[in-house]
Amino acid sequence: MAQQHLEPTDPRSGHVGPPGPTGDALAGYLRAQATEFLRALRQHRDPGGTAAGAQDPVDAARALRRSVRRISSCLHTFRPLLDPDWSESLRPELAWLSGTLGMEHAYESRLERLLLALHRLSGAVFPTHTVVPGPDRGNLTVGAAKAGALLDRRLTLARTRAHSTALQALGSSRFHAVADSIAVLASEVPLTRTAVTTDLHPLATAAQERLEAAVTTLPLVTAGSPYNAEALVHGLSPDPSPHPQDAPWHQVRLLLRLHRYAREALTGGDPAVEVRLLTAGQALDRHRDASEAAAEAAAAARTPRIAPATAYALGVLHADQRHEVEAARFAFQQCWQKQTVNT
Amino acid sequence: MAQQHLEPTDPRSGHVGPPGPTGDALAGYLRAQATEFLRALRQHRDPGGTAAGAQDPVDAARALRRSVRRISSCLHTFRPLLDPDWSESLRPELAWLSGTLGMEHAYESRLERLLLALHRLSGAVFPTHTVVPGPDRGNLTVGAAKAGALLDRRLTLARTRAHSTALQALGSSRFHAVADSIAVLASEVPLTRTAVTTDLHPLATAAQERLEAAVTTLPLVTAGSPYNAEALVHGLSPDPSPHPQDAPWHQVRLLLRLHRYAREALTGGDPAVEVRLLTAGQALDRHRDASEAAAEAAAAARTPRIAPATAYALGVLHADQRHEVEAARFAFQQCWQKQTVNT
Repeated sequence: MAQQHLEPTDPRSGHVGPPGPTGDALAGYLRAQATEFLRALRQHRDPGGTAAGAQDPVDAARALRRSVRRISSCLHTFRPLLDPDWSESLRPELAWLSGTLGMEHAYESRLERLLLALHRLSGAVFPTHTVVPGPDRGNLTVGAAKAGALLDRRLTLARTRAHSTALQALGSSRFHAVADSIAVLASEVPLTRTAVTTDLHPLATAAQERLEAAVTTLPLVTAGSPYNAEALVHGLSPDPSPHPQDAPWHQVRLLLRLHRYAREALTGGDPAVEVRLLTAGQALDRHRDASEAAAEAAAAARTPRIAPATAYALGVLHADQRHEVEAARFAFQQCWQKQTVNT
Repeated sequence: MAQQHLEPTDPRSGHVGPPGPTGDALAGYLRAQATEFLRALRQHRDPGGTAAGAQDPVDAARALRRSVRRISSCLHTFRPLLDPDWSESLRPELAWLSGTLGMEHAYESRLERLLLALHRLSGAVFPTHTVVPGPDRGNLTVGAAKAGALLDRRLTLARTRAHSTALQALGSSRFHAVADSIAVLASEVPLTRTAVTTDLHPLATAAQERLEAAVTTLPLVTAGSPYNAEALVHGLSPDPSPHPQDAPWHQVRLLLRLHRYAREALTGGDPAVEVRLLTAGQALDRHRDASEAAAEAAAAARTPRIAPATAYALGVLHADQRHEVEAARFAFQQCWQKQTVNT
């Protein structure tokens, strides 16, 4: 690990005491992430490989996305320490790759979430880690079964398309250029001339301050009051973009991730703080997933010529997912409040 | 007031200290309620009357129901102190009267609740104490407007029928017999021979114990955990009677009322305790109202040949009202917990 020699100083207190991590530590972190990317790429191309730590393609794809997110985040947070031409040309490519590789998984987990909700709303009980129920199995009403079948058709089609797009992307010259850049990064990080001795703390602190400023714009008082009924307030709105209220939460989710990865680069992560950040991040992931699942239920209900019973089930499902959105905001508020009290 | 001479003893501590209220106090309470009934009945028959305290027919009908509920509750709780033939013959008649007089108001407030929810779900904002929006006004989607119109038709029809039924009831010989019984009650309460000197506390305590036993059967741990998603768990169930989970809460609502009226008869009500009981009761009223509104939305969605957009809006509305059910349970849990801690 590149971080093992670092002092465990608090990255939020500015640079006080013994010399903290500099651009040297950043270079070590980026090299480690680039190496992880190359390993995951080999696994992805040779899923039957007998090498130690062999992963299935799904895990390999997840590991690819994981390292791409971290490299991309550090390019953003520590931009002044990196060669500007190089980082400005690589960042959009990483965003493209991350987006392309993530779509298949997103559609798959959205379908899983919606089918599980349909079964839950039908009073069925599943043990944890169960096989996801098919849309037509179990004790569903006609409406719930038809809604499940419709969502299955829509999201399976979208997932199949996303799979093809990802395969095409991985075979493209655009991807090979990104992979080549990351291969270079694994051995040589293009730092600026002064970066090796520049303290990382001010840039990491700036990332944290951007997060905290964004959190102050959230309606946390409302979110902390259970059953505030805020998330469904546009549930039947004629507005074609019905949930602008979700946007600031999505923004905080991204800024929280930037903050978390910056901490990783600096300290390797203080376990106690990392758990709290992870929990807060999971609440925001759930917020995003429920928001998108609710939008999918609403979009499916606009399918021409569906039966009223199907539309009714999709309406119940939409509202259920919007309440999940509200529940996720409550969970984030509780977690964030605890964090603020403890630090 | 018949209660003004009573000691403010705690009705839950049994009979300790100075002599507490006896059957004599009960007789005073029943006479006062019967007098209130007769006054409300005069107001109801002569709504244009210039007598002091003249009320509109809606207020008069509410006052009628209010006194009927209290008389009926006391007949139940203090049954051993009352002439059994008389009380056993009057109680079903009071239940019939209370039910018949309450239906019109129930349909009216259910429609009001559902139309307000439709507008809230459409992102419209109303000041408090606003005129209830019509189903077709405001910035509704086609689906929400059609759902509102459908609910308006169904519930206005039901309300009109309930109004006719109530008018017929008030002109019936069955009603005149009840009114005559209550007129007698206003001057002479048929107590048993020993009732005048019998302590009311044991019977009032028994009513409280029935309430407390019923509350222990409620899933209060779940209810106190926000966003437990329990109330919607049968939202799409094929079960024709989808919400048996509501029944124990409805039962507690009735037992809480019996307890509250028994306290009134004993003490005239300790204001601090009464506020807590009222708040708990209001949460349970809201639970009942939301439960019935959710059922109405589900029933309306089964109307043949409705548009999918209408059915979708009704699905959202159903889920919204089931979340109101869950929110009401949370409110009751919070209130009850506070009550238990404080006593």
